[in-house]
Amino acid sequence: MARRIKMIVAYDGKKFSGWQVQREERTVQGVIEAALESMEKQTVRVTAAGRTDSGVHARGQVVHFDTTLSSIEADRFAPALNAILPADVRIVGSSAVPDDFHARYSAKARSYRYFLYPGVCVSPFLRPYCYAPRSLPSIGSLNRAVSPLLGSHDFSSLSAAGDPSPSKVRVIYQAVFLQHRGMIEFRITGNAFLWRMVRSIVGTALEVASAEDPARAMRLILDEKDRSLAGTTAPARGLFFWRVHYTMEQLYG
Amino acid sequence: MARRIKMIVAYDGKKFSGWQVQREERTVQGVIEAALESMEKQTVRVTAAGRTDSGVHARGQVVHFDTTLSSIEADRFAPALNAILPADVRIVGSSAVPDDFHARYSAKARSYRYFLYPGVCVSPFLRPYCYAPRSLPSIGSLNRAVSPLLGSHDFSSLSAAGDPSPSKVRVIYQAVFLQHRGMIEFRITGNAFLWRMVRSIVGTALEVASAEDPARAMRLILDEKDRSLAGTTAPARGLFFWRVHYTMEQLYG
Repeated sequence: MARRIKMIVAYDGKKFSGWQVQREERTVQGVIEAALESMEKQTVRVTAAGRTDSGVHARGQVVHFDTTLSSIEADRFAPALNAILPADVRIVGSSAVPDDFHARYSAKARSYRYFLYPGVCVSPFLRPYCYAPRSLPSIGSLNRAVSPLLGSHDFSSLSAAGDPSPSKVRVIYQAVFLQHRGMIEFRITGNAFLWRMVRSIVGTALEVASAEDPARAMRLILDEKDRSLAGTTAPARGLFFWRVHYTMEQLYG
Repeated sequence: MARRIKMIVAYDGKKFSGWQVQREERTVQGVIEAALESMEKQTVRVTAAGRTDSGVHARGQVVHFDTTLSSIEADRFAPALNAILPADVRIVGSSAVPDDFHARYSAKARSYRYFLYPGVCVSPFLRPYCYAPRSLPSIGSLNRAVSPLLGSHDFSSLSAAGDPSPSKVRVIYQAVFLQHRGMIEFRITGNAFLWRMVRSIVGTALEVASAEDPARAMRLILDEKDRSLAGTTAPARGLFFWRVHYTMEQLYG
């Protein structure tokens, strides 16, 4: 009898070519599947809530897979895999879920955080996990810049050109810049995100925040539905896939 | 005219074979001297307050060197070197100092911190910078264990066998375990430290803390002046060279 297992996964994206398996590249999916296959002695496919890009980190990626190993309790997959996996991927927890749970399709919302460093970052420990732009607008003007993004919009102009989704409409529930522990954190939650959408939003917010009316500048970009009008894509190293919400209550809990 | 420059240096020790230059090994001294030599177009020797071991990190290592480059202000060495150095070494600051300043001999005291993680560390971001022992004694018993170390003692039994110092007497001003941000931090300040002394103290404290009388157990080890009686050496990855004090006022400031 196959069981479905859900796992929460954290990884340091520095040395990964992103989540998704690619021939000859080191990917998070690749190392997790290899670890599971060494336990199961057969091919195992792991499905993730979101496919993170090369260099993007995760604190709360969620995955599911089906197992025929009946000898191991669901919550023991985490320590068993952690004993095999490289140190830059950790299974935070594992549990049994109903067969109709799907890491991606059951997800109601996703949260990302992007870390900006004010000034020159002289810490070798923080540098790989944040972006220190040459000049950083005030938090007030950054928040004015992202305010038009809340709600349901076509985000064509704030995603990478290659996104294959037929509809570019996504719903944003929260988008806020705040100061926390000496960093500027951007917290964003939406039902789903287009390719490079969070990094496009951060890069564009950093540019339009210095406009006279940052909200108006962002609204114009959004309305044009044309990627070429938006700002640059902020670097991958500042981005963390923070949490996946499977109920809307979780979102406000 | 040569000037003497003092620099504060931070580094992630993971990929370094320690501070000191060794043939064919990647060392912090090696990469800093190479960066300086590319600026100065001549051999430069850098002297550090403390020579950290392989895998040990630094937040506030202090170094000095003499420069004949008259075209660069003292405080510009930091950004100039940071543009050349690999990302895992950062110059936090640089300043001119009198010719009689010596990073090592002028230092009145050194502070180290050692980070312990309670439980299994499932964060791929924290794991390289802390040690998660299988069982962790209470903070109270850890503090009882290190209480006999305060003051002036012969630390032969709490250092590695190869330490070349003629006298093994060192003065400890502070040695305390405390809970901070979900970790157990060990903070220790002394006039100077023998080879692997901090890691020996942490490893031994973790063992004797479970004794009926942890202070008595530590005192017995200290009095024997015999390394073989002490506990294991805690892993390098949890240790940070935190700060160097050049005045005693700094110590209590």
